[in-house]
Amino acid sequence: MPKRETATRVYSFGLWTVMNRGADPFGAATRAALDPLEAISGLAAHGAAAFELHAEDLIPPGSSTVERDRLIAEARRRMTDTGIVCDACGSSMFTEPVFKDGGMVSNEARVRRMALARYEAAIDVGHLLDAPLFNIWGGRDGAEVDASRSPVDALKRLRDGFNELDAYITRQRYPMRLSIEPKPNEPRGDLYISTAGHALGFIATLEHPEHVGVVLEFAHAAMAGLNPAHEVAHALYAGKLDGIHLNAQRPLRFDQDLRFGGANLKDSFFVVKLLEEERWPGPRTFDAHPYRTTDEEGIWGFVEGCIRAYEILAEKVRQFHEDAEVQQLLAEIKRWAAPPQSDERPATGPGRIFAYERLDHLVFEILMGTR
Amino acid sequence: MPKRETATRVYSFGLWTVMNRGADPFGAATRAALDPLEAISGLAAHGAAAFELHAEDLIPPGSSTVERDRLIAEARRRMTDTGIVCDACGSSMFTEPVFKDGGMVSNEARVRRMALARYEAAIDVGHLLDAPLFNIWGGRDGAEVDASRSPVDALKRLRDGFNELDAYITRQRYPMRLSIEPKPNEPRGDLYISTAGHALGFIATLEHPEHVGVVLEFAHAAMAGLNPAHEVAHALYAGKLDGIHLNAQRPLRFDQDLRFGGANLKDSFFVVKLLEEERWPGPRTFDAHPYRTTDEEGIWGFVEGCIRAYEILAEKVRQFHEDAEVQQLLAEIKRWAAPPQSDERPATGPGRIFAYERLDHLVFEILMGTR
Amino acid sequence: MPKRETATRVYSFGLWTVMNRGADPFGAATRAALDPLEAISGLAAHGAAAFELHAEDLIPPGSSTVERDRLIAEARRRMTDTGIVCDACGSSMFTEPVFKDGGMVSNEARVRRMALARYEAAIDVGHLLDAPLFNIWGGRDGAEVDASRSPVDALKRLRDGFNELDAYITRQRYPMRLSIEPKPNEPRGDLYISTAGHALGFIATLEHPEHVGVVLEFAHAAMAGLNPAHEVAHALYAGKLDGIHLNAQRPLRFDQDLRFGGANLKDSFFVVKLLEEERWPGPRTFDAHPYRTTDEEGIWGFVEGCIRAYEILAEKVRQFHEDAEVQQLLAEIKRWAAPPQSDERPATGPGRIFAYERLDHLVFEILMGTR
Amino acid sequence: MPKRETATRVYSFGLWTVMNRGADPFGAATRAALDPLEAISGLAAHGAAAFELHAEDLIPPGSSTVERDRLIAEARRRMTDTGIVCDACGSSMFTEPVFKDGGMVSNEARVRRMALARYEAAIDVGHLLDAPLFNIWGGRDGAEVDASRSPVDALKRLRDGFNELDAYITRQRYPMRLSIEPKPNEPRGDLYISTAGHALGFIATLEHPEHVGVVLEFAHAAMAGLNPAHEVAHALYAGKLDGIHLNAQRPLRFDQDLRFGGANLKDSFFVVKLLEEERWPGPRTFDAHPYRTTDEEGIWGFVEGCIRAYEILAEKVRQFHEDAEVQQLLAEIKRWAAPPQSDERPATGPGRIFAYERLDHLVFEILMGTR
Repeated sequence: MPKRETATRVYSFGLWTVMNRGADPFGAATRAALDPLEAISGLAAHGAAAFELHAEDLIPPGSSTVERDRLIAEARRRMTDTGIVCDACGSSMFTEPVFKDGGMVSNEARVRRMALARYEAAIDVGHLLDAPLFNIWGGRDGAEVDASRSPVDALKRLRDGFNELDAYITRQRYPMRLSIEPKPNEPRGDLYISTAGHALGFIATLEHPEHVGVVLEFAHAAMAGLNPAHEVAHALYAGKLDGIHLNAQRPLRFDQDLRFGGANLKDSFFVVKLLEEERWPGPRTFDAHPYRTTDEEGIWGFVEGCIRAYEILAEKVRQFHEDAEVQQLLAEIKRWAAPPQSDERPATGPGRIFAYERLDHLVFEILMGTR
Repeated sequence: MPKRETATRVYSFGLWTVMNRGADPFGAATRAALDPLEAISGLAAHGAAAFELHAEDLIPPGSSTVERDRLIAEARRRMTDTGIVCDACGSSMFTEPVFKDGGMVSNEARVRRMALARYEAAIDVGHLLDAPLFNIWGGRDGAEVDASRSPVDALKRLRDGFNELDAYITRQRYPMRLSIEPKPNEPRGDLYISTAGHALGFIATLEHPEHVGVVLEFAHAAMAGLNPAHEVAHALYAGKLDGIHLNAQRPLRFDQDLRFGGANLKDSFFVVKLLEEERWPGPRTFDAHPYRTTDEEGIWGFVEGCIRAYEILAEKVRQFHEDAEVQQLLAEIKRWAAPPQSDERPATGPGRIFAYERLDHLVFEILMGTR
Repeated sequence: MPKRETATRVYSFGLWTVMNRGADPFGAATRAALDPLEAISGLAAHGAAAFELHAEDLIPPGSSTVERDRLIAEARRRMTDTGIVCDACGSSMFTEPVFKDGGMVSNEARVRRMALARYEAAIDVGHLLDAPLFNIWGGRDGAEVDASRSPVDALKRLRDGFNELDAYITRQRYPMRLSIEPKPNEPRGDLYISTAGHALGFIATLEHPEHVGVVLEFAHAAMAGLNPAHEVAHALYAGKLDGIHLNAQRPLRFDQDLRFGGANLKDSFFVVKLLEEERWPGPRTFDAHPYRTTDEEGIWGFVEGCIRAYEILAEKVRQFHEDAEVQQLLAEIKRWAAPPQSDERPATGPGRIFAYERLDHLVFEILMGTR
Repeated sequence: MPKRETATRVYSFGLWTVMNRGADPFGAATRAALDPLEAISGLAAHGAAAFELHAEDLIPPGSSTVERDRLIAEARRRMTDTGIVCDACGSSMFTEPVFKDGGMVSNEARVRRMALARYEAAIDVGHLLDAPLFNIWGGRDGAEVDASRSPVDALKRLRDGFNELDAYITRQRYPMRLSIEPKPNEPRGDLYISTAGHALGFIATLEHPEHVGVVLEFAHAAMAGLNPAHEVAHALYAGKLDGIHLNAQRPLRFDQDLRFGGANLKDSFFVVKLLEEERWPGPRTFDAHPYRTTDEEGIWGFVEGCIRAYEILAEKVRQFHEDAEVQQLLAEIKRWAAPPQSDERPATGPGRIFAYERLDHLVFEILMGTR
């Protein structure tokens, strides 16, 4: 039976996840809105040691500076009281009509400026909450009408925007990294930065690639049919995994943001395995939301379910590494994986057969708890 | 720890699954062909109480009647020796160039006749092996070039073909049902009978719908992004589930035919749950194949892995039904599901909230073996 | 240049299509709501000879009978003034929280009764508008938590519900058919009646299958990766195509409801080809909505674009049938498609080669306007 | 009517495209193999000014150096005779059993060495044919069993392999670039370098990123549901588009490699538009194959169809740029896209409305040839 290791592993949730009201494109909200301060306290009370937010989750757009500072002070009080920290900030400007054709990629220069101003204001909020990361999911930076904008121009506008935000952070001397959260589509027909790979390739073209990383969302990888663990591996390999958003997603569907563990059991195991094996130090953040059929009271069960699913899977990873047969099969692989000593000419002949079929079945049994 | 219940549950494999040589569209075969008689004996020795076959798996196309009868006699000897039975027969005519644009839907009347003759010959083989079912996966009955054939005409040709085969079986007085195995695509760009629903709708247009059922393949449902348990439910609801092909399939990919349990863990649980809850009497048939990286020796581990996965999932179903909290949640649902006594006017007001979030999490825990 | 054949072909739109306000799951509405009466008049003024509606589009839920009758009278006045007719009615109860876990499949008997009462009230509205069809897209009749309800039970509840609605229509002596509009998923994780095939198979289990047909939506077929023309063919073949919803949808995405012609050009051609070739008499209904980036003024351009796309594609169908090379290739196919006179034994030997590659290329050229 | 501009635009085909025999995972070959020398001459005779090859297309694995040189001499003679050039070389080692678990990522060090030796031999062949590019589609560099290999290790092995091949080319002083062709899956369950983005991100980690680019295949982007034009844009934006493989692919299916123009009409237009607008100088290479229903004679019609489709779409691009209404709409966009002169504070207020709905409809009409 897995036991909590809260001392070593930080769980985090987006404030928006528990503030979600259950509306969807075909239906009205089904539960009352949770106050952001209650969200902070409630998360702290239910196992989260950190939270992520859109600045607007806490501070309604159009608030005065006085109002902003009051809300931040209140949030900080909750943080002090509960010990919860803010690990990342972003902006939900994507909800607003003015950005309907993009923030940083808008065809209107004025809107692009507005987007940068909004991001800078949100960066300030993140700084005031001691967030070490400003994460940008540019949910409107995409297109349905490819005739309206060259995708090459879109990438140049994104480059200019990210360079400017990076410069802003540097100028303000904020100890904050910048990150990109890719997604293939939704709400736009296509988003320009669609996968981990596209984010990594794009970052390499920035003025200061070393300031910018990626935040990967499990469901976003699943939406493109990619292997989520491979997405994480690309970011880890590049030394650029700045955050992870865990949830679940059935294939071939709209963005579902299901409770972690609600689908994709095996893929989730391999993502957890990679994070644990590589001793990735960041928070395990959940970006999901309760079902529309869940009421206010069910929210905290949802929160506990996400955390519990991670702990169970992390325990499975430990079992995998302690299973004698698994280790024997991996040792056999390892024995042949090391380059041979002499630089002799490669021999011909067939390749070795490793017991992959058995190894994969053992993963199934470990997942099922029958080993 | 689940224990085998071989007395009550019949496991079956297609002969072609263990005879598969590991070739794929980009690569040559990686293992030697298993002799069909060895396949029969080997399956019997590794937990299968039944097998399914394409007539051609046993009897090479073009064999004489003498050769056919000799091979059938040999197969029957293996069956007698081991107790394994043949639960379904079909034809692999889809491999042959002459049927490249379809068997029963071909634009060439002569080819359609050849296809029916081939099916009838295979029906004879099935009868000689005491198969109670002749299952047709019309792998070439589809199209890439929709201009070449009206899909309405294709359905009419399929109708005429199925009616003729049904009449043949009746005329021969074979105690045999006919079934359709749907698939959305591959190897054709689109297959005309794509899902459980399409098979069921089509069967309703035949002369004797009561003679014809469906065989559902897990991976084929997954390829269309449909919920495999819902596919099975449609067939059960219609009283037409004549067979089930179990395997695994990652989404958004070519037809993978992975080992049962190799992916889709939760969907597999719900398929097993439905089969067990409805006490569906048919054989649990596996239509998968070992990885291309598996050698001859690994085949039997693959076979055992499929069976073991089913048994583990069936045991999970039992646990689900014995879990006190699950049963309490289901009882609460059941209490409100029954129609109220009086026929009073429907009240207004919000719907009840059931603990779906918790119930789904409990499924996760039961699957993980942590309850 | 195609010319309008408004005399012979009826175009229709859902009122909700032009009333759509541009909201999406990540963003607020971007345009003002169009009044339903203005929608009726506007559609009539922009080329539509018919409209479809959800009863609630015209009559807000909770309206009194007096208010209902006043609104219907006003709608009928617009209809008389403009000549536009109502070709189908449905209900948008799926938006309301009480039906969040289903209408006819709800686990709460009381909610199932409420759903039937709502449908019956909407049937009355349809009758008062002379709609010959009541079309049910049961957008909430699905699940995310399969443990909460057996899918077999769900189908039985749907069967009972449809039988009851059919009986209601019969009892009221309304000259109205009932139809089912399938969709694989969204807003629910899975919908129980997912494709044309599933609707057709399900209808065969009703008390009066002859009263019930299907309304097919292009995008819904595309969401499951099925060939939309084949979906239409299944319904035509079964004699059950009661309506068609035309739009566009890029693959592997949320339900986009793009303007007809906005994607899927070739698939759209083959759907139009089938409807025209089979002289299907029903209205060509568009169920799409303007982009979120479109304002109120752009709505009518959207409407005209849908109609224009259909007319262009219908003209392409005519060209296809008049193209000498196409006809020569089809004649060659036809020559071999007819069964040979004598019932001689099927010859062996390879199949004929038809010029499919050329035929498909000619479709491309006809679509491009370069023939 | 579009006219050939063979003087300015180079069309190319993989030799394997016309040598394809029509086999698929469920069916045997349907046509005789074309000799590679005949393929070269045939392509030259049917509009191609260049070809691409796998070294093994020309030189069977295991050939002696003498045999290799003879075959190269013969190929060069065909090239001289016809004027066709070789624009890229690769290796089809992915067909061979020894590489069944990967070439550069194999768990067996010896196999990794064999893969590099094979690539180096193929690089030599490319050099002897004056190919300016060596393109690697590592079709086996993926996995089904994620437990068998850390994806981070796989990326490190790929990095070491690419660095070694780059060093080999430098050491040999070949005037040759190296490129990566990404694909999400098939034949492996997942390939490690899955999209344009992943290739670009990976290249940034190599010792000499400036030596390595990407070759994008239309169908591979479509398989992941990504926008193919956006994939091309990422490579162009990064200055790394070294090649393009054009074909067609219906969504949610196995790798179809359909004739260019056979599907995805609008996406194909936007890819051609980008290549033409950016005056991308490389060859327009087709990597498709004739239908399995096509015979030997149909191959050249297939070749001509691909080229013709490109020319038609390129002509559509020209029309787009000459259409007065399109240009007026784009001018309006451009007017607002330029940054305003003064650095004044961003104004609030709604965004401008551009006529996207109309613009997209005009693309439809231009594609249909009705403008």
